[in-house]
Amino acid sequence: MAQKPSIPKGTRDFSPAEMARRNYIFDTIRSVFHLYGFSQIETPAMENLSTLMGKYGEEGDKLLFKILNSGDFLKGVDKQLLDSGDYVKTAPKICEKGLRYDLTVPFARFVTMHRGELNFPFKRFQIQPVWRADRPQKGRYREFYQCDADIVGSDSLINEVELIQLIDEVFRRLGIRIAIKLNNRKVLAGIAELAGAPDKIIDITVAIDKIDKIGLDNVCKELVERGLSEEAVALITPVITLDGSNSERLDKLRSLLAQSEIGLKGVRELEEVMSLTDSLGIDATLDLDVSLARGLNYYTGSIIEVKALDVEIGSISGGGRYDNLTGVFGLEGVSGVGISFGADRIYDVLNTLGLYPEGIADSVKIMFVNFGSEEALRSLGVIRELRRAGISAELYPDTAKMKKQMGRADTLHIPYVGIIGGDELAHGTVTVKDMTTGEQSELTVDEIINKLSK
Amino acid sequence: MAQKPSIPKGTRDFSPAEMARRNYIFDTIRSVFHLYGFSQIETPAMENLSTLMGKYGEEGDKLLFKILNSGDFLKGVDKQLLDSGDYVKTAPKICEKGLRYDLTVPFARFVTMHRGELNFPFKRFQIQPVWRADRPQKGRYREFYQCDADIVGSDSLINEVELIQLIDEVFRRLGIRIAIKLNNRKVLAGIAELAGAPDKIIDITVAIDKIDKIGLDNVCKELVERGLSEEAVALITPVITLDGSNSERLDKLRSLLAQSEIGLKGVRELEEVMSLTDSLGIDATLDLDVSLARGLNYYTGSIIEVKALDVEIGSISGGGRYDNLTGVFGLEGVSGVGISFGADRIYDVLNTLGLYPEGIADSVKIMFVNFGSEEALRSLGVIRELRRAGISAELYPDTAKMKKQMGRADTLHIPYVGIIGGDELAHGTVTVKDMTTGEQSELTVDEIINKLSK
Repeated sequence: MAQKPSIPKGTRDFSPAEMARRNYIFDTIRSVFHLYGFSQIETPAMENLSTLMGKYGEEGDKLLFKILNSGDFLKGVDKQLLDSGDYVKTAPKICEKGLRYDLTVPFARFVTMHRGELNFPFKRFQIQPVWRADRPQKGRYREFYQCDADIVGSDSLINEVELIQLIDEVFRRLGIRIAIKLNNRKVLAGIAELAGAPDKIIDITVAIDKIDKIGLDNVCKELVERGLSEEAVALITPVITLDGSNSERLDKLRSLLAQSEIGLKGVRELEEVMSLTDSLGIDATLDLDVSLARGLNYYTGSIIEVKALDVEIGSISGGGRYDNLTGVFGLEGVSGVGISFGADRIYDVLNTLGLYPEGIADSVKIMFVNFGSEEALRSLGVIRELRRAGISAELYPDTAKMKKQMGRADTLHIPYVGIIGGDELAHGTVTVKDMTTGEQSELTVDEIINKLSK
Repeated sequence: MAQKPSIPKGTRDFSPAEMARRNYIFDTIRSVFHLYGFSQIETPAMENLSTLMGKYGEEGDKLLFKILNSGDFLKGVDKQLLDSGDYVKTAPKICEKGLRYDLTVPFARFVTMHRGELNFPFKRFQIQPVWRADRPQKGRYREFYQCDADIVGSDSLINEVELIQLIDEVFRRLGIRIAIKLNNRKVLAGIAELAGAPDKIIDITVAIDKIDKIGLDNVCKELVERGLSEEAVALITPVITLDGSNSERLDKLRSLLAQSEIGLKGVRELEEVMSLTDSLGIDATLDLDVSLARGLNYYTGSIIEVKALDVEIGSISGGGRYDNLTGVFGLEGVSGVGISFGADRIYDVLNTLGLYPEGIADSVKIMFVNFGSEEALRSLGVIRELRRAGISAELYPDTAKMKKQMGRADTLHIPYVGIIGGDELAHGTVTVKDMTTGEQSELTVDEIINKLSK
């Protein structure tokens, strides 16, 4: 009656080797978050559906994983509704909870609920999985981790500068060369004003966001299709095809958007963020990119996106400023700016470029082979001392064939093997085999501690 | 239209202060797991319901959180079934997935699926949340973390000894004084044989498990109620009221169970584990306790339970040996032994006893106050150098009133405040205020690094 087990599509098991690599990424991000003064929070995997619904658009609502009410979930549900087959209307009658879809909405809910206990500006980070009922495909999963850092309760552009430095530091530590692209929603609003269509800002940004993929001609075509006049398109073309250095671009933008108050405000914000960042210095390239929109009607100021320079892959980090994070939960006036690291894509980049440092696998430092009960007892005593000295160690638990025991050390990349046989029992020593060089030496416990603590 | 947000009952938000304490517990457990040669794995939050159902008894099936199928979940569901109101039968028609209920079944599923890639004995640990639709009450949540370590593919009792040492080390590091209770399912089988009712082993263990709560007389009464003869109860009474030292208890057990082959095997196993543990030495008390059953028909050999000595609370860790972890998934012959740490109870114990070490809160080391743009820029430069030296630091992002800025450092227990005003700008220095003593000193960046790196 045994079933052949499997896991839900779009989900993954992580083996020890994968965990070691993932932990390396998470630990790196976490240390930098701490270094920059962010504090960790966690929120429940399940949120009330009322918290989640309507926050991610109609498409997002469909992609929420809903949790069936416990007990008699059918009780009190209208039979006519059930029979109607209207699953969209039925779902909220039998499900009160859903799995979190991102970390931003739960964070907004958290800030609203705990506002009395928080000290603003509140700098939080959060590293937790999220779930989306998306169609799984290469690089897209139904369960994946997000690593978010946000500063809420401060309008200062210094926060943007700090986040840019933080991004730079994370990728410097990971060894990934990056370009940070910067834009400002107010500049996009200025462009819409320039086109004489301030209400068409979404249409315009969606179109110009595609310029890298489809080219200028097709963007212009799309702008016309979306209702802009040929004249308007001609007016904004110079804006979306800016070139030169960042300061040249800023100068051109300033003159092109001279008539738009909001556009000029965006230019000033960009200028301040870029000039502060420049004077502090970062390793990454910082590029002003007015085509950057991140497809979201969510940001109200700065928009940030990070691209890996040496691998063809989507953005590996991104974020921006939002004016009213918690308004939907009844708490007005909480603005903030945040970024999110895409752990799965960073994992892929590190794999592609072979950038994992040596020794991140979490194997033990030394495995003792097992010749029998007397030798095992002595080995356990030595292992106890090694562990007290902070050296990870283990005994092969069974008296299996030597080939099998050594094979384990080999397969698991355990760097040293400890051998206690008759001679070592008599001498009170351990023969230590270096699995890389094959060298063997008979050592006292103190000598092993010295050797392996290095 | 703003809603007042809340979270599902039985779930929790964790604030930065709580996270710091929880991370201290998880980090401690994780380091000891590594020290003992366990490797981390992770499995998805969602498992197929077919993996989970039937593994936790009828009651467990009810407590599984089920996830509504995405899309048109009503399609193809029999209308008669829907109208019948039979929610137990309806649930599996509209839900294919559930949230994991513990880490053991997903681990068994993992071992079965990945057996070709694993090197046995396989020593894995796993620290992840689990979900149960239990009625929430004090200390019982619907989402909570489990921290499990298991060794599978080895019958050696050395594994038990290692786990006992590991438990001892975790609680030694946490500063919690504990007693480790040890029993063996084979001894329980021997007791059932002694009572002439080998098929009643579950009834007997359930009854004698209560001896601490209800006393010997009531246990005897219950045994009779559960179908044992007065004679049988008289025969096993000396077994369940053993006293004296562990070795005295073992001697008595050996003579009382002299006629039971399996009972004697259990005694020999207990003896080996206890004598090995004794010769290696642990800090905890190790107690043979034949009343220990952990209410489970799951273990086949050793049974382990950990009690805190200085707080009245249920067991804070426990585990045991099972003969056939993966049989239900079609992989026979994989035995193992494992333990699980209850993070929430450990959290409560540490809180009750006030055992958290100083300085685990993750506040920054130094916050710079913000007097304006020139001072802020210089501060950011200094902060950059401090962070490069591994010192966590931040700038108050806004030029708020000094009282508000200093208040933040106070509330968040930030130990130092850096001040750069006109004088410091002129001297190229920083005035550093020690928030504990109130002392101020004007320092160079190198001097700050020296001071704060200590």
